[in-house]
Amino acid sequence: MATTYELLYWPVLPGRGEFPRLIFEDAGVAYVDVGRLPEEQGGGFEAIRGGMGGQGEGFPVFAPPMLIVEEDGRRERIAQMPNICHFLGVRFGLAPEGALAQAQALTLMLTVADVTTELHDCHHPLGKGLYYEDQKEAAVEHTTAFVRGRLPRWLRYFEAVLERGDGAHCIGGRHSYVDLALFQLLEGIAWALPTAFAHHMADAPKLAALRERVAKRERVAAYLASPRRLAFNEHGIFRRYPELDIAPED
Amino acid sequence: MATTYELLYWPVLPGRGEFPRLIFEDAGVAYVDVGRLPEEQGGGFEAIRGGMGGQGEGFPVFAPPMLIVEEDGRRERIAQMPNICHFLGVRFGLAPEGALAQAQALTLMLTVADVTTELHDCHHPLGKGLYYEDQKEAAVEHTTAFVRGRLPRWLRYFEAVLERGDGAHCIGGRHSYVDLALFQLLEGIAWALPTAFAHHMADAPKLAALRERVAKRERVAAYLASPRRLAFNEHGIFRRYPELDIAPED
Repeated sequence: MATTYELLYWPVLPGRGEFPRLIFEDAGVAYVDVGRLPEEQGGGFEAIRGGMGGQGEGFPVFAPPMLIVEEDGRRERIAQMPNICHFLGVRFGLAPEGALAQAQALTLMLTVADVTTELHDCHHPLGKGLYYEDQKEAAVEHTTAFVRGRLPRWLRYFEAVLERGDGAHCIGGRHSYVDLALFQLLEGIAWALPTAFAHHMADAPKLAALRERVAKRERVAAYLASPRRLAFNEHGIFRRYPELDIAPED
Repeated sequence: MATTYELLYWPVLPGRGEFPRLIFEDAGVAYVDVGRLPEEQGGGFEAIRGGMGGQGEGFPVFAPPMLIVEEDGRRERIAQMPNICHFLGVRFGLAPEGALAQAQALTLMLTVADVTTELHDCHHPLGKGLYYEDQKEAAVEHTTAFVRGRLPRWLRYFEAVLERGDGAHCIGGRHSYVDLALFQLLEGIAWALPTAFAHHMADAPKLAALRERVAKRERVAAYLASPRRLAFNEHGIFRRYPELDIAPED
């Protein structure tokens, strides 16, 4: 019985939707990117906003990304970016075998997700429901603390994860969905905080090598060069604002 | 073969450690609460701080809580609060059966975890590495936006989850680890933001009923009345500061 996958995410920004997208692309599994369909085919912003309620398809979802899995005559919905990634990673053979090893992979995936949330906090320190323009000053303060404190700690942590493994992969001595997520996180930080990122990455050669390795995987490379890959911009988690490109040292 | 469970978390605050603790207690499964052992028995702050590195036991962990599972002659470590809860919930029969249904439970668990993170942001809007005293003004601003915007949205969301289910349980029509987590979240908000919580909970009768139901479960009730249950205080996620007990309306 064929399975179909529908990914629901905002159409104009990579954000949290890009993490599951990379797994589909790397695994070579077909998916419908609902938000990016034309409106007359059921795509666009309103389709995503409306999709979260999902009348008749189980519990409501708080926010995108959401995944709909249709198989065996049933449509089931799951959400939360790291959860979707873990679910797909396990399904597509991009995760270790066994409940404990999979929980270890998810430990790292959730840690990647924590950093993405902190990246968002850099430009929205006073509230996710307020405009950036109304919290610019606090954003500079928050981002300064972040690039000097949390960011180097996070990068050192993931470098140590690679060192304690086989040096090249996050978990299980082989490529996994966690490596894809870490790649995307590094891409996002490189976009959002280029000065601090370049500075701190000089001390993280294994992370830098992972970033290169993942970008060169055959299907990933083809995807990155395709129009399906959305460019980073000033929406979503990873935003580039000149005033937040703060140096890690005075 | 016997399995032993060691939970590593800071000894003086309920924080994120309390979520897995409640699962052990409700399931009636023995665990070692490492941080709360006397120092001479390997407990205390330093044991937790040092435990994250875990030389020789796999990858390092960024932050507590951490769980060590020892079975079949192996010691394995996992971390990230919602991941630990999911792992234990599945093991102890406090989760639905099947990969998709379990991913739905984890969707809700991660949403509970998101709210706990936003609660922490209320008193630490400018940076997790800075002192509260150095960000009091921003904390008032952030918390005001939170109690008027995000908090009622979150509570309405979970009320809708219960409405769309059987009315009493988050998922699967029966008690699960997600109900325990939602209980603890409600307890934490009631402590940290009592005025706003009382106001908004008037519109969430099913959430209020869930909170009462969980508190009355036999093993949970015994645990809550025991000295093992740590009181909320001014440490960790759920802190009560009079200046942040902001009314949801002017």
